Amino acid sequence: MKRRTFLKGGAVVGATTLVAAPAIAQGSPEIKWRLTSSFPKSLDTIYGTAQTFAKYVADATENKFQIQTFAAGEIVPGLQALDAVSTATVEIAQTPLYFYIGKEPALAYATGAPFGMNHRHQGSWWSFGGGAELCNEALKPFKAHAILCGNSGTQMGGWFRKEIKTPDDLKGLKFRIAGMGGHVLAKLGIVPQQIAGGEVYSALEKGSIDAAEFVGPYDDEKLGFYKVAKYYYFPGWWEGGAMLHMVVNEEKWSALPKQYQAILNQAGAAAGAWMIEKYDSVNPAALKRLVAGGAELRAFPQPVMEACYQATQDHLNEIAEKSPLFKKTKESHDAYMKEVLFYTQIAENYYDNYLLSKARKG
Amino acid sequence: MKRRTFLKGGAVVGATTLVAAPAIAQGSPEIKWRLTSSFPKSLDTIYGTAQTFAKYVADATENKFQIQTFAAGEIVPGLQALDAVSTATVEIAQTPLYFYIGKEPALAYATGAPFGMNHRHQGSWWSFGGGAELCNEALKPFKAHAILCGNSGTQMGGWFRKEIKTPDDLKGLKFRIAGMGGHVLAKLGIVPQQIAGGEVYSALEKGSIDAAEFVGPYDDEKLGFYKVAKYYYFPGWWEGGAMLHMVVNEEKWSALPKQYQAILNQAGAAAGAWMIEKYDSVNPAALKRLVAGGAELRAFPQPVMEACYQATQDHLNEIAEKSPLFKKTKESHDAYMKEVLFYTQIAENYYDNYLLSKARKG
Repeated sequence: MKRRTFLKGGAVVGATTLVAAPAIAQGSPEIKWRLTSSFPKSLDTIYGTAQTFAKYVADATENKFQIQTFAAGEIVPGLQALDAVSTATVEIAQTPLYFYIGKEPALAYATGAPFGMNHRHQGSWWSFGGGAELCNEALKPFKAHAILCGNSGTQMGGWFRKEIKTPDDLKGLKFRIAGMGGHVLAKLGIVPQQIAGGEVYSALEKGSIDAAEFVGPYDDEKLGFYKVAKYYYFPGWWEGGAMLHMVVNEEKWSALPKQYQAILNQAGAAAGAWMIEKYDSVNPAALKRLVAGGAELRAFPQPVMEACYQATQDHLNEIAEKSPLFKKTKESHDAYMKEVLFYTQIAENYYDNYLLSKARKG
Repeated sequence: MKRRTFLKGGAVVGATTLVAAPAIAQGSPEIKWRLTSSFPKSLDTIYGTAQTFAKYVADATENKFQIQTFAAGEIVPGLQALDAVSTATVEIAQTPLYFYIGKEPALAYATGAPFGMNHRHQGSWWSFGGGAELCNEALKPFKAHAILCGNSGTQMGGWFRKEIKTPDDLKGLKFRIAGMGGHVLAKLGIVPQQIAGGEVYSALEKGSIDAAEFVGPYDDEKLGFYKVAKYYYFPGWWEGGAMLHMVVNEEKWSALPKQYQAILNQAGAAAGAWMIEKYDSVNPAALKRLVAGGAELRAFPQPVMEACYQATQDHLNEIAEKSPLFKKTKESHDAYMKEVLFYTQIAENYYDNYLLSKARKG
């Protein structure tokens, strides 16, 4: 059905008139949705992506399709965004799907697994490598449908009170880290901590935790961690190319006119581009300010990276043995990653490395 | 003006009715545009981006806004796409703006200068670094407005009959290369050749040219150059992150309802994402087939890269001395590039290099 006609209660136009004036009669329905985000408004790039998405949809429909955005906690807590979509408490949510790996481990790949593909390759896998289909299969029991809408790029590894020189330095470390990265690091002796965002600073200051990870320089700066845990490590290998989604209640999605589905998909891609473009525009200056403020940049040493990489492979293989859907998704992801890395080393990465070598020489 | 009412010739609805039934009266106008591409249909990813863009616009408007795509030569030759927009022969064109640096050198940065920013950073500069404003300033005399719609990523350096071991090997080399890359290489003794696509193969075979560059593995494979010039060099430093645009006649753009302008912008971003995602999905296998077919992969040796880099700086500085708009655009690009490279080396590039080191080990 390509054309739909919606008559509002008070409309007094007969069917004959509609047929006589088709250019006027093909109105699009007026729809109002509520969007719950898993993020606070203070994360103005991530939450801003939800606002940008909503604005794009309104712009493309002359405000007929309005999506009102709510920050985490305004309707439901951030970790319950998907449930709110499943129960149709809201029609749509902005949420990182790895929040829900306790219920469905395969959703790890919807955001990105540790040591998984980077920003650019995740997008290609999503659209052309079967990623969207696999992740939406994982979302079926949640009665939800995911639209790709953004990626953080490779995140930072977080703030540490002491330097990490060998894998042994990880043992017993109380690290505020969520999701699968925490599970992997637990294999290496880390004690993952779940602490609400507002309490992390004082926990670091008091020394009741030893480290905390968040996103990247621009977001991290606002929290001020550099004042109480000055070693700023990279890379955040557990979020090497974290995809974000708009997750829609399946029934609400199916009931939309095809036109509105197309507009949501396009707004998702456009707002997703906005997100990474915006991050790249604000992260460099934030990192400079952090370093000027006393942050000490450190790469995780190679032996630490190797230990983390091996622990990741072990962890992912263990889950694959238990979950067929996880296994299928992992195999799809890993095969795609092998292909794209083979090519990216030739042109893109060689070029990047050359530009960086020139930049370092000034 | 948020809401527009367009009455078609035959509509017999009075103003009073319009006020009484607003949900019905806000029809969107039916518009048909013609799009001329600078590319042939055989380049199904680049030309496919134009087709995808047109489909997205149709989908978002219930087919009310239709854009019919034409390959290079069907309406005007590929190099005249911008002129066709200026004269309103067509409303819109898909064209790489560096085709027109003979008329306005600053347009080099609209596509990307040699040794310029990569795919991801170009997008950020375009949206948040003033890139769009500067390039649209350069397009003013052409009565045209550019919408970003895609990027090729770093291209390959092309096919050579003989190996290039030192900068001296470039001297006298007849190289089929267009645009600013050719101007830079001319400083190093290359003789740039302009040959129509269909004649390059036989010119390479006969030895009347020594080398030819095109795009990347997937597109290059179709032309079969590996059979007559087996050394396949990388990277294509003259197109390190080549942006593509939809270029719209300024008057036609201004006359569009805001809704349609928003839809074009969003379709541009979404089709642009499609383009790089698609390239990343097809280039790896194509490169493997090329290597299996006899292509020999070579990186340009460091001394060659250094000579090209220096010749590029000289060339860009010479143009900047003559053109204030080029100078202003170059300064904006270079300052932005310095910032993004500072950050990208920390997280993204470190992560990429680590993944590649693991992939190489198998």
